[in-house]
Amino acid sequence: MTFLLRTRPATTPAMLAIFDDRETLRLGLAFEAALAEAQASAGLLPAAVTARIAAGCAAIIIDPAELADEAAHAGTLAIPLVTRLRAVLGDDLEAARAVHRGATSQDLSDTVLMCQVRDALAVLADDLRRTSEALADMSERRARTPALGRTLMQDAAPISFGLRTAQWLRGIDEAARRLKREASAAVRVQLGGAVGTRASLGGRGTEIAGHLARSLGLAEPTGPWHAARGGVAGLAAAVGIVIGALGKMARDIAILSQNAIGEAREPMQAGRGGSSIMSGKRNPTGSQVALSAAIRAPGLVASILSGMPQEAERGLGGWQAEAAPLIELFMLAGGAAAAMAVVAEGLEIDEEAIARNLAPADVGSDIGDAAGIVAAIVAAYRETC
Amino acid sequence: MTFLLRTRPATTPAMLAIFDDRETLRLGLAFEAALAEAQASAGLLPAAVTARIAAGCAAIIIDPAELADEAAHAGTLAIPLVTRLRAVLGDDLEAARAVHRGATSQDLSDTVLMCQVRDALAVLADDLRRTSEALADMSERRARTPALGRTLMQDAAPISFGLRTAQWLRGIDEAARRLKREASAAVRVQLGGAVGTRASLGGRGTEIAGHLARSLGLAEPTGPWHAARGGVAGLAAAVGIVIGALGKMARDIAILSQNAIGEAREPMQAGRGGSSIMSGKRNPTGSQVALSAAIRAPGLVASILSGMPQEAERGLGGWQAEAAPLIELFMLAGGAAAAMAVVAEGLEIDEEAIARNLAPADVGSDIGDAAGIVAAIVAAYRETC
Amino acid sequence: MTFLLRTRPATTPAMLAIFDDRETLRLGLAFEAALAEAQASAGLLPAAVTARIAAGCAAIIIDPAELADEAAHAGTLAIPLVTRLRAVLGDDLEAARAVHRGATSQDLSDTVLMCQVRDALAVLADDLRRTSEALADMSERRARTPALGRTLMQDAAPISFGLRTAQWLRGIDEAARRLKREASAAVRVQLGGAVGTRASLGGRGTEIAGHLARSLGLAEPTGPWHAARGGVAGLAAAVGIVIGALGKMARDIAILSQNAIGEAREPMQAGRGGSSIMSGKRNPTGSQVALSAAIRAPGLVASILSGMPQEAERGLGGWQAEAAPLIELFMLAGGAAAAMAVVAEGLEIDEEAIARNLAPADVGSDIGDAAGIVAAIVAAYRETC
Amino acid sequence: MTFLLRTRPATTPAMLAIFDDRETLRLGLAFEAALAEAQASAGLLPAAVTARIAAGCAAIIIDPAELADEAAHAGTLAIPLVTRLRAVLGDDLEAARAVHRGATSQDLSDTVLMCQVRDALAVLADDLRRTSEALADMSERRARTPALGRTLMQDAAPISFGLRTAQWLRGIDEAARRLKREASAAVRVQLGGAVGTRASLGGRGTEIAGHLARSLGLAEPTGPWHAARGGVAGLAAAVGIVIGALGKMARDIAILSQNAIGEAREPMQAGRGGSSIMSGKRNPTGSQVALSAAIRAPGLVASILSGMPQEAERGLGGWQAEAAPLIELFMLAGGAAAAMAVVAEGLEIDEEAIARNLAPADVGSDIGDAAGIVAAIVAAYRETC
Repeated sequence: MTFLLRTRPATTPAMLAIFDDRETLRLGLAFEAALAEAQASAGLLPAAVTARIAAGCAAIIIDPAELADEAAHAGTLAIPLVTRLRAVLGDDLEAARAVHRGATSQDLSDTVLMCQVRDALAVLADDLRRTSEALADMSERRARTPALGRTLMQDAAPISFGLRTAQWLRGIDEAARRLKREASAAVRVQLGGAVGTRASLGGRGTEIAGHLARSLGLAEPTGPWHAARGGVAGLAAAVGIVIGALGKMARDIAILSQNAIGEAREPMQAGRGGSSIMSGKRNPTGSQVALSAAIRAPGLVASILSGMPQEAERGLGGWQAEAAPLIELFMLAGGAAAAMAVVAEGLEIDEEAIARNLAPADVGSDIGDAAGIVAAIVAAYRETC
Repeated sequence: MTFLLRTRPATTPAMLAIFDDRETLRLGLAFEAALAEAQASAGLLPAAVTARIAAGCAAIIIDPAELADEAAHAGTLAIPLVTRLRAVLGDDLEAARAVHRGATSQDLSDTVLMCQVRDALAVLADDLRRTSEALADMSERRARTPALGRTLMQDAAPISFGLRTAQWLRGIDEAARRLKREASAAVRVQLGGAVGTRASLGGRGTEIAGHLARSLGLAEPTGPWHAARGGVAGLAAAVGIVIGALGKMARDIAILSQNAIGEAREPMQAGRGGSSIMSGKRNPTGSQVALSAAIRAPGLVASILSGMPQEAERGLGGWQAEAAPLIELFMLAGGAAAAMAVVAEGLEIDEEAIARNLAPADVGSDIGDAAGIVAAIVAAYRETC
Repeated sequence: MTFLLRTRPATTPAMLAIFDDRETLRLGLAFEAALAEAQASAGLLPAAVTARIAAGCAAIIIDPAELADEAAHAGTLAIPLVTRLRAVLGDDLEAARAVHRGATSQDLSDTVLMCQVRDALAVLADDLRRTSEALADMSERRARTPALGRTLMQDAAPISFGLRTAQWLRGIDEAARRLKREASAAVRVQLGGAVGTRASLGGRGTEIAGHLARSLGLAEPTGPWHAARGGVAGLAAAVGIVIGALGKMARDIAILSQNAIGEAREPMQAGRGGSSIMSGKRNPTGSQVALSAAIRAPGLVASILSGMPQEAERGLGGWQAEAAPLIELFMLAGGAAAAMAVVAEGLEIDEEAIARNLAPADVGSDIGDAAGIVAAIVAAYRETC
Repeated sequence: MTFLLRTRPATTPAMLAIFDDRETLRLGLAFEAALAEAQASAGLLPAAVTARIAAGCAAIIIDPAELADEAAHAGTLAIPLVTRLRAVLGDDLEAARAVHRGATSQDLSDTVLMCQVRDALAVLADDLRRTSEALADMSERRARTPALGRTLMQDAAPISFGLRTAQWLRGIDEAARRLKREASAAVRVQLGGAVGTRASLGGRGTEIAGHLARSLGLAEPTGPWHAARGGVAGLAAAVGIVIGALGKMARDIAILSQNAIGEAREPMQAGRGGSSIMSGKRNPTGSQVALSAAIRAPGLVASILSGMPQEAERGLGGWQAEAAPLIELFMLAGGAAAAMAVVAEGLEIDEEAIARNLAPADVGSDIGDAAGIVAAIVAAYRETC
């Protein structure tokens, strides 16, 4: 069963690939192999056993749909995955017993999710950078181009066109930096065992967690974080704010590209933004993607915050509720960022319309320190990227 | 690409099937065929043309993943679907031109979604009824069984055990009735054309909309509702409240099945509710599904409400943001209802534990009108179902 | 301490008065007096005692700020209120003991809130009716006035201007009817005692609850609903949808009153919609009120839904979290409805601008069944109001 | 009109004082005085005029309720405030004209709000520190005290009691640090004039903004941020996460203080946590405050995120929707933090109950690296505070 007709228009193939079942499965097996290896490195397991587990992980063939049914029944993904991996190891009881030792289901789930988040962040960062670069150039080029300012949806005093686009840049740049900061705290391995003590690991739990983190390319946290979900919440909020910043840019482009204003339009792309009924129409489809994302994101952030008061050592319902909205946020951010990167790089700015709209408004020509503000925003962006 | 490892545990195969791409596609083609048929019935199209369009809809083979890519590019599902359908009709220009006549992309999207909602409602109603039936019986049987009441998470005065379960019933029953009411208003066809005037239909728009509604088994609205989204919002909220009512029952079962209390436990099912690390554990996994749903639902309802102020005749971003959270709400409700139906039907109530917990609390034995309240709640349920 | 500088601009004096501390206090005392009276009518209390309690309620003088501090310390409003009332009754131990008998804190809180909700609903209904009436007239008058339709923020095919305003009417009318329906289910008395059994009322609990409901002008529920919060959630969602429908109208007016479009403007009112810096500006301030409300409402609805899974007989945190967002929703709805009533009644429609915008768009003149749809929407409104 | 009966129980007198109308008014006048002074320092105004404006600000007497009505009519607080201030200056036309020069309504509103946020952050930080200190001590003292771990609401493997409290500390500490980080970016002056160009300030806008920021004790931003609301959103989310972390601690205390578990109880305080009907009850009222806050906060965060896509230079509805939920978040955080500080400092831990609950569970005694994790969490806290 697939759901691409509804999910694909809001995101990108790259984001879909990161959260695809096969990738989830691959990372789940990578977790088990790396955990065995980490135990070997701590002297808890012969290297040969580790190698046989790794071989099992490499050889095993699993139908994600079947595994999904089993996970639904069991209540966790790890149980049927480990059962199947042990089955593959067959008579090799030493290896079978060593699989997943010291880990709980949530260790696998959280770690796999964080690997995917890390990959999604990289894709997202690229598209945000493309957008920001284009906006920085655009803003500098038009730092002094007079344009009509609009407030409360009414014509107001003049600005420079570059000030408007610089404000888009500033929103996206600040949001991208927040996201990076949150990611550096939150994208970490999970290894705590049943109750977060790292028991059953011969007193070497912290060392093993560190090894596991390095193998998988994740940070090592200050102890397990099974029921301390602030990092995930911070990440979710930061993605939500990225989407909001893209939505602000999209809202403005929707306003500017109204036929009666016409100061800017999304780039022409064959087959994009048309109507199924009106042939000449050119809808701001990229902005639509970002605006839809901005409508959906706040509720998803709220869902993740709502799950924070999780019970005791590992909660009932709270952490299980997080992955879906977090993934959705990344999907939406990826879709919005990719769409707005294309829009930013190809934005058609109509200088004549800008001048035409400004002229009769009789609002004077004092654009104050617009150029200086543009320069400061662009400098702040260039400095940190 | 599939995402079942993350979605399946929160829902049921039946719900997944309803929103599956193949079903979406089937319903999209059914919309086009029924629209042609409705135009024929209004004399706008020869019956033979309609038959050829229907044949095209029946014969066409589409890879949903490819169509999803095209829809993402175009900005709407209808455009590539109609293009492909016209291509299948080939030289039959009369039929090709008649396809989708008078309809806009949103007509197709909204109508398809409402067909799926109708089917999801039927599945959901079944599981809610199973739960309610089980709770009604349970409540009547224990209408006078003394049990310890608990308020603000502290032991309080006595209740009857049946009063507690009757309150679960009441919450679910009232929520199910609200949902039915909202559905009867909201599950309707969409047909308005580009701007909601039903132009290009030879002045027979309302008749055609009525015919289309009957063909597809949907209600006929008072005109198109492209930007009047209260019906969708009402439906979303009603589903959210169903989930909240199931979550309330689940929260109580989680509390009652704590080892230190032990008054009720979810039914034993082989392989369900175990731990990947502690062999004897029996987690309230059904309740977990409902509690997770109850954490996620409010944000999804908020997303749909946030999209209501849609621009002009058809908005930018708002309606495109609705389908995903609405579908998610149905998925979650379906998963929670199915899980709680199993829990309700098999709930293990430990009478000894109930008595044991009550005894030392020294809270007297006045259970007031508990039995009468149980009877009234059960009667209210029986009356309307 | 007051907070009117922030709350008043979003609501009306009428709404503020309904939720004011003095009114809350008045209703709290009315609850206690009516409860005593109901017990007397059931023969549980001599009428003379009831009269002395009523006299105490009438005579007592309480500083709301002091009581608020006491309520904050105690964790409930009822405890210090009852303590003070008993103190006023002094040596009259019979009366003092009879005060609040059989009731729990939540009985008072929920009942007081429902009295306020009932009053707020009446105020709200008036302003919604004013808006709807104005829109119905406006729609009928311009049912055939051609105007440019706009979709996805782009010029599209023609509509009639009256179709646009009829769609606003339909959204508001359907939302108002939903609200009425939800209110009739939810605006009910609360009387359950500590654990919802109606103990300590001599087996006459249901009779007493009925009497109490009639005294206070509330409906009588099927038993207490301490932890069955679907009614409150349904009410909150219905208010949220009313706000969304008003927000849709406001969004459109914001678009239409852009200087470059100018098809409609909010009525001129001295001192309203100005700028602190640009003298000639005329901001759509009524629409701003409704749009702000529409941004804030979904999160408030989500908060109330999030509280639904309340623990056992009366929960910890959930019900205490409801009143504030529910009141806020009514405040916002009241503010938005009042603002939009003024806007609807005085909307300045510029026929010339409408014609001027339509002319060059070259979109033909087929407005399909616009007039028929207008008629149907207006008829549906007239029928039910 | 006051609303303390509903607001006070969820917050503290200190927070109420910060957001009180008189304080809002005081800060609004301080903004105008400081703006005049900043213009004088840039040579745009004689110092004597500045002094007269300052005198006017000091002398003016305003009834907040009246001003609130005027602000509601005008659509902004600044307009009637400036009008009244100019009236006080009477014939001193030079001063009257200089008042508010270069500023727009939103400059005043945003700046005043940020001053209040700064003060609220200080109060909040104190209570979070008290909580963290108490938790750090408690965690170290019981770093090796065996206790029953609980997962998915079921008894699980052993932990140390100090590990549980250290996890509360970690959640609160990480959240407090995030909040500090967000505050340092967001708590800044707003000065942009009508369209964010800092026009009408003789080309000295940036210098004047800097001077204004220093006078008022706020940071100076990279240009105005009228429609770039990521900072506010980041702040809101960070407050929401603080509340979530306090809610996690509260949830656990609610579980631990159930009569059947009894491992910890909130401190006994006369008159706190009682019942209006059951005399011996001792409800976890502090935890209730934090749990209620945790239910309400996510929706408020969502509201602020939803407002991000604000139109053009200054939006319609979006920024006007921010102050109320942001203030509410601080109120709730302040209430929850103060309540949990008292709880943390006085938490009654019952060692016998801990031992008694652990004994029969037959879960072994391997608490893994619990003590080491406690030490690491406490060290991380101590390092940064």
